Amino acid sequence: MNVVPPALERLIADLNHLPGVGVKTATRLALYLLRRPAEEARVLARDLVDLHDAITLCSNCFAFSETDPCAICADSRRDSRMVCVVEEVADLMAVEKTGAFQGQYHILHGVLSPMDGIGPDEIKVDALVSRIDRQQVKEVLIATSSTVPGEATAAYLTDRLQSKDIRLTRLACGIPMGMDIKYADELTLTRAIESRKKY
Amino acid sequence: MNVVPPALERLIADLNHLPGVGVKTATRLALYLLRRPAEEARVLARDLVDLHDAITLCSNCFAFSETDPCAICADSRRDSRMVCVVEEVADLMAVEKTGAFQGQYHILHGVLSPMDGIGPDEIKVDALVSRIDRQQVKEVLIATSSTVPGEATAAYLTDRLQSKDIRLTRLACGIPMGMDIKYADELTLTRAIESRKKY
Repeated sequence: MNVVPPALERLIADLNHLPGVGVKTATRLALYLLRRPAEEARVLARDLVDLHDAITLCSNCFAFSETDPCAICADSRRDSRMVCVVEEVADLMAVEKTGAFQGQYHILHGVLSPMDGIGPDEIKVDALVSRIDRQQVKEVLIATSSTVPGEATAAYLTDRLQSKDIRLTRLACGIPMGMDIKYADELTLTRAIESRKKY
Repeated sequence: MNVVPPALERLIADLNHLPGVGVKTATRLALYLLRRPAEEARVLARDLVDLHDAITLCSNCFAFSETDPCAICADSRRDSRMVCVVEEVADLMAVEKTGAFQGQYHILHGVLSPMDGIGPDEIKVDALVSRIDRQQVKEVLIATSSTVPGEATAAYLTDRLQSKDIRLTRLACGIPMGMDIKYADELTLTRAIESRKKY
């Protein structure tokens, strides 16, 4: 016998579709919202609808933004001749949080993954190439992840941008700050040795 | 500089209020919803609003339900003279999933917790007492958790219902099925020994 009211069951199913949310977590969240004042669920609902209504992609860097161009691309204090290429908006947030980068970003919205049918045309590569000419970019910092598809995408970009008169850089790979060397994995340690710096 | 669009930031804040959802998970979920078609966020929003509109408490057992009485209380095949007392609706779901219980439920909507100002009047105890008389209940199975507040609530209910001519039972405590005895905690093992059964 089904003891879960249909409205509750629908919400559990919706939440269960979110990444990393299993049916137990979805049930817990739905029951929590049901126990709380109706206003809380309504605020969440309104902000969910607002999300896609208010936010578009910046036509220059493809970040999510309520304005076009986005705040970063529109900011004259940022160096438009330096572009940091990232896989997705979350990566932009991570780099931005460091405060160590003063240029603009370019969001690829994905990585090359031939197995999944994602080639250069499926991610924002052409837009990057034309942007480099348009903005007279001097340096492109490739900040894709150090995963297999991230590295493959970086290699493709390096190849594709080789002919341009720009400085092509890649985020350094090595031991994370504060990490005990004996716990570093072999690949990271190998990279750290290869990329060793002179005092 | 704030790089997160306000609409995205609001949704992240909403999600961050949910139990067990930190700001990183909230960001991940919000960005996921932003990348997916707007329809997905809209469906979730609609079901969130529906939740409180459609669901009320069953006036008999206090389970969440779209009808009053709820499906279980309205089902004539269920034994109305046997009542399983649980802390919250999630516990009802867990018991119901076993299929081992054919009576009705009574949801307390909380446990006694004097430190948080939750006494018998804050949970559905009086309603349980009057229900026992009204439905001529024969057995009350106390299925509160085997936590300190759960046990305290069970003790209070036992005391309160002592004078009634009913069979008062409590869920058995012991080694979970499939558990290696050497990994059982001392309290559980003590309980299992004390409650040992004769072959």
